[in-house]
Amino acid sequence: MAFQLVCSRCQQIYEPGSLLWRCPCGGLFDLATFPISFPRERINSRPPTLWRYLEALPFDPNYVGWQKVTMGEGYTPLVQLPIQQPGAWFKMDYSMPTLSFKDRGAAVLIAKAAELGVEHVIADSSGNAGTAIAAYAARAGITCDIYVPASASSKKLKQIAAHGASVHAIAGSREDTAAAAIAAVERGGVFYASHVYNPFFYQGTKTYAFEIWEQLGGHMPDSLILPVGNGTLVLGAYYGCQDLLRAGLIERLPRLLAVQAENCAPLAQAFEHNEADAAPVENKGTVAEGIAIAAPARSRQILAALRESHGAIITVSEAEIETARLGLARQGLYVEPTAAVPYAGYLCALNAPEGQNLANTSVAASYLNEMRQAIPQGQVVISLCGAGLKAA
Amino acid sequence: MAFQLVCSRCQQIYEPGSLLWRCPCGGLFDLATFPISFPRERINSRPPTLWRYLEALPFDPNYVGWQKVTMGEGYTPLVQLPIQQPGAWFKMDYSMPTLSFKDRGAAVLIAKAAELGVEHVIADSSGNAGTAIAAYAARAGITCDIYVPASASSKKLKQIAAHGASVHAIAGSREDTAAAAIAAVERGGVFYASHVYNPFFYQGTKTYAFEIWEQLGGHMPDSLILPVGNGTLVLGAYYGCQDLLRAGLIERLPRLLAVQAENCAPLAQAFEHNEADAAPVENKGTVAEGIAIAAPARSRQILAALRESHGAIITVSEAEIETARLGLARQGLYVEPTAAVPYAGYLCALNAPEGQNLANTSVAASYLNEMRQAIPQGQVVISLCGAGLKAA
Ligand SMILES: [Zn+2]
Ligand SMILES: [Zn+2]
Repeated sequence: MAFQLVCSRCQQIYEPGSLLWRCPCGGLFDLATFPISFPRERINSRPPTLWRYLEALPFDPNYVGWQKVTMGEGYTPLVQLPIQQPGAWFKMDYSMPTLSFKDRGAAVLIAKAAELGVEHVIADSSGNAGTAIAAYAARAGITCDIYVPASASSKKLKQIAAHGASVHAIAGSREDTAAAAIAAVERGGVFYASHVYNPFFYQGTKTYAFEIWEQLGGHMPDSLILPVGNGTLVLGAYYGCQDLLRAGLIERLPRLLAVQAENCAPLAQAFEHNEADAAPVENKGTVAEGIAIAAPARSRQILAALRESHGAIITVSEAEIETARLGLARQGLYVEPTAAVPYAGYLCALNAPEGQNLANTSVAASYLNEMRQAIPQGQVVISLCGAGLKAA
Repeated sequence: MAFQLVCSRCQQIYEPGSLLWRCPCGGLFDLATFPISFPRERINSRPPTLWRYLEALPFDPNYVGWQKVTMGEGYTPLVQLPIQQPGAWFKMDYSMPTLSFKDRGAAVLIAKAAELGVEHVIADSSGNAGTAIAAYAARAGITCDIYVPASASSKKLKQIAAHGASVHAIAGSREDTAAAAIAAVERGGVFYASHVYNPFFYQGTKTYAFEIWEQLGGHMPDSLILPVGNGTLVLGAYYGCQDLLRAGLIERLPRLLAVQAENCAPLAQAFEHNEADAAPVENKGTVAEGIAIAAPARSRQILAALRESHGAIITVSEAEIETARLGLARQGLYVEPTAAVPYAGYLCALNAPEGQNLANTSVAASYLNEMRQAIPQGQVVISLCGAGLKAA
């Protein structure tokens, strides 16, 4: 079982141990489809972590090296909303070793790197992904360089450094940081542990869907409400649902509702205009730093996944994010602003007056109308993906 | 089933709805023994949270109100140490809704308050307990006043306030804060949601032991290494082990090894001198703020529990705490200084040269010698009880 990389543009196949970070044609890598299964008894015999779905992960079932990488990530609680919505749940995805959902991707990606014999990795991030990669690399005994924007919060840099990573602060934009990391990867022939480009990362985040399916007694809710920036969770959830569909465990995809901060919303803009790709936008500044991605590299895949699921993207204002964050805290749930974005989207959909729409477009409006009707009898799972103490 | 309070001094019985915070004789309250069971099938049928042990908790088994209080706390991962110690584990007890083990106690205590119809509570804390009580009260729709030392970190105060609690900053020592809270409790006839005085809090922390027992396949390790300040975890673990013993599920108590910061170590001092109670000490200042308790109210019970388990207390220096914290981070585990104290104790016990002891007493020395021999073939679980981002 090879778990090969496949170019999303020219379909060329590469070995996972190749140190290419994308195809020479410029296409991004996906993972080639591989056989999966969900053997109920084996799943139930394992502890409640994402590794209980080992037969649906890109490893030989006899590979035990992940046991030296795991820190118990995954199988985060599903908590009912304390309101009159019998089918609305929060997924407590910040109950994680490094306090964000990025641990899903980091654990699987670093376990794969360890299996391949990789001794050193490079990653770049403005925050949670870098922290997660640094922590799991430390756990696995793999050294790493983490590239961060010079503007990143000192709290996050301190944690990354505490994990033993070499921190490289790069002046300029988030995109300049990524460019510096990629230059270093290409210079050195180094394994790029990117949460954006490395397809094994999404093999970790896809377990988000598996867990919800199991926690709801073997089915998916009508809608998943997710934050979207680079799409690590949206694409992960999509791949996970596809796996469940392929295994015959669900009959259709749940609707993926993605939420962006209106101050940095290239995907929402492309969705509204029925574009296949997102054009870069100017980041006007948002408290939702984790999803302030002006030029998402996988926009085409994200938009296609949302459309296939009959989902949509809506945007929320800075004030709506802050209201949602405080509203969550008043219910006992303390999350960082980025993690409040899906709940802000949920509140908008629930509370927007009939006929009024948020993004001021017919697509979003019709979506909102549908959602307003679906929510009272439908099931919805709202992601809470990063702890409040993450915020500066 | 009444779940009555019993005075630890005069044995007088009180109803749980009484708003007394201790017996008029001055004795502290314990919970009267009540029938418990561990029905394997029911436990297995419930999600991995501390509520899976409902038949061992102080609630009518038909009480469902806890479902509106829970945020999925408990059943935290047990992660193997990445060294040549086959039987050494970390208990990831900061994988919790408010990022510390205090959520165990807060969830059970607030669920009990909700069951009793309490609408307002008072608590006091320098940090994690206050955060946990504020969060769970918010979740349960109970208002609360939290008393904190004026010196508490602004980060913690900000979170407590975000949960909607009224924050009262009290000048002076940690003891002055407790005195102010108690004065308010007595003035107003208010429910005191104290992690120190309220025995229902320990009914939550006792689940720490239940989980380890279940996660290790139905047995306890030889030793539990725990931080100790007010004893909320040590006493909880002790009560949990007593319950397992009473239910015939284990044959003897595991050894409870408690660790204090040497700069504030009243319990270690009393243990060394074979005293029944701890005399107050001067807090010389320690990074382990969560256990910097100069006059622990339940010292008699803590010391008795440790002795009954054939355990001990050792102390660690500020440098040893920092070394342990950094050592954990280099393994991927980012915890606050207080939470690194048990690992610091473990390293001391493991590395102290034969014949040399830490606390410079024969008790600790003989303990260390035993531990040095026991660890290579014995099992030990080391608590990691608070997330690194908690630290100021
Ligand atoms: Zn190509
Ligand atoms: Zn009494």
